[in-house]
Amino acid sequence: MQPGSLLYQGKSKQVFETDDPSLVVVRFTDEATAFNAKKQATIEEKGRLNCAISTMLFERVGEASVRHHLVQPLNDTDWLCLKVEVLPIEVVVRSVVAGSFAKRYGLSEGDVLPRPIVEFFYKSDPLDDPLVGEDAILAMGWAERWELLFMTDTALVVHETLRRIWAEASVQLIDAKYEFGRHDGRIVLADELTPDGARLWDATTGDRMDKDVFRRDLGDLAASYRELYRRLLGSPEG
Amino acid sequence: MQPGSLLYQGKSKQVFETDDPSLVVVRFTDEATAFNAKKQATIEEKGRLNCAISTMLFERVGEASVRHHLVQPLNDTDWLCLKVEVLPIEVVVRSVVAGSFAKRYGLSEGDVLPRPIVEFFYKSDPLDDPLVGEDAILAMGWAERWELLFMTDTALVVHETLRRIWAEASVQLIDAKYEFGRHDGRIVLADELTPDGARLWDATTGDRMDKDVFRRDLGDLAASYRELYRRLLGSPEG
Repeated sequence: MQPGSLLYQGKSKQVFETDDPSLVVVRFTDEATAFNAKKQATIEEKGRLNCAISTMLFERVGEASVRHHLVQPLNDTDWLCLKVEVLPIEVVVRSVVAGSFAKRYGLSEGDVLPRPIVEFFYKSDPLDDPLVGEDAILAMGWAERWELLFMTDTALVVHETLRRIWAEASVQLIDAKYEFGRHDGRIVLADELTPDGARLWDATTGDRMDKDVFRRDLGDLAASYRELYRRLLGSPEG
Repeated sequence: MQPGSLLYQGKSKQVFETDDPSLVVVRFTDEATAFNAKKQATIEEKGRLNCAISTMLFERVGEASVRHHLVQPLNDTDWLCLKVEVLPIEVVVRSVVAGSFAKRYGLSEGDVLPRPIVEFFYKSDPLDDPLVGEDAILAMGWAERWELLFMTDTALVVHETLRRIWAEASVQLIDAKYEFGRHDGRIVLADELTPDGARLWDATTGDRMDKDVFRRDLGDLAASYRELYRRLLGSPEG
């Protein structure tokens, strides 16, 4: 399956048409962006590493009976995927206080939450993906009630699955964002499962190993992602 | 019932002990604040006008079977109230797009929403009362699930009651904030129902008649509140 014309240019992904209208090619690129693309860089190997990590994680959540958009990897950077209508809502699951959640509610970064917390954000680059309440989502027609419930339940299952996988790799999953799409009347997990969209801390040292390395200039992002991938491969079921 | 020692100093209200531990005196003051008290002024008559407007509106929502904290007015500025444990959540109901909702989601101020939308905010002056999702409220223990449901239903009833009252006075209720307290195992409507905590536009001209007059330096706040009170008194059931 060869990629056709470009359908969508994301911040670190491209989506191409295929000759099957129900399928697309998703390409992981070497672009890194932060602060809503106010900070940008090209980081060699990032696309390949994100593709490899995301492939492994999608396969694992698939084994946990989560329906997702990945049909099959095509090469080092490209996936064949179901073509989905992406919902305009990002689902964030938080296990540990960090980032905007710490700041917004005056909580201490690193504090373990009593249980994972689900938050919704309205996907909009010009608006910086603002937090949004359930009632606003429903009233504005951004998702149906059953879709919100399904995304919430699925995000929690995915998050718990990933938490265990990362824990086996001596990495603490702090929080992560999940995106979903509509395909053939169903909601499927879409987008990617990479260190670009999650906070991952070394379980022993607490060192940041995710995109915060880039956001906060904490070191070599590619080296960090390589180490994450190495640990995933080395973990018991990797 | 004479006010005892000061229990709480709010931005435009004071709460005093009484000799009955289940009752307090709430005093409406002439203070006006905006932008989380970054802008302040004393506006003569504001306390009396807010007390008069709020008394009329609490009595009307009481007739709509909404349980609230007002026991009886004591004089021009003071109420005898149930002593409640205020929940740390503000409930905002929006009928028309305005203010932070317009800005946050890139919507046009003045657009009528498909139905009233309920949003929750975490009450915290140092944090500027941030928006908060339902799941975060529950997980953090800021309210119980039944309390959120009860506050949502009650806020919608109160809002619809007020929308009708204001409409009869040729005033459009755009949005309003409602606060609740726990008293004797129940949730009651607390705080106040004044133009300090609502957006009220002249139904014909669209002129702002609420605290935005002060926030945005649009004119004489006391004159505006006097006009609101005058219209309430003159409306069919006023």
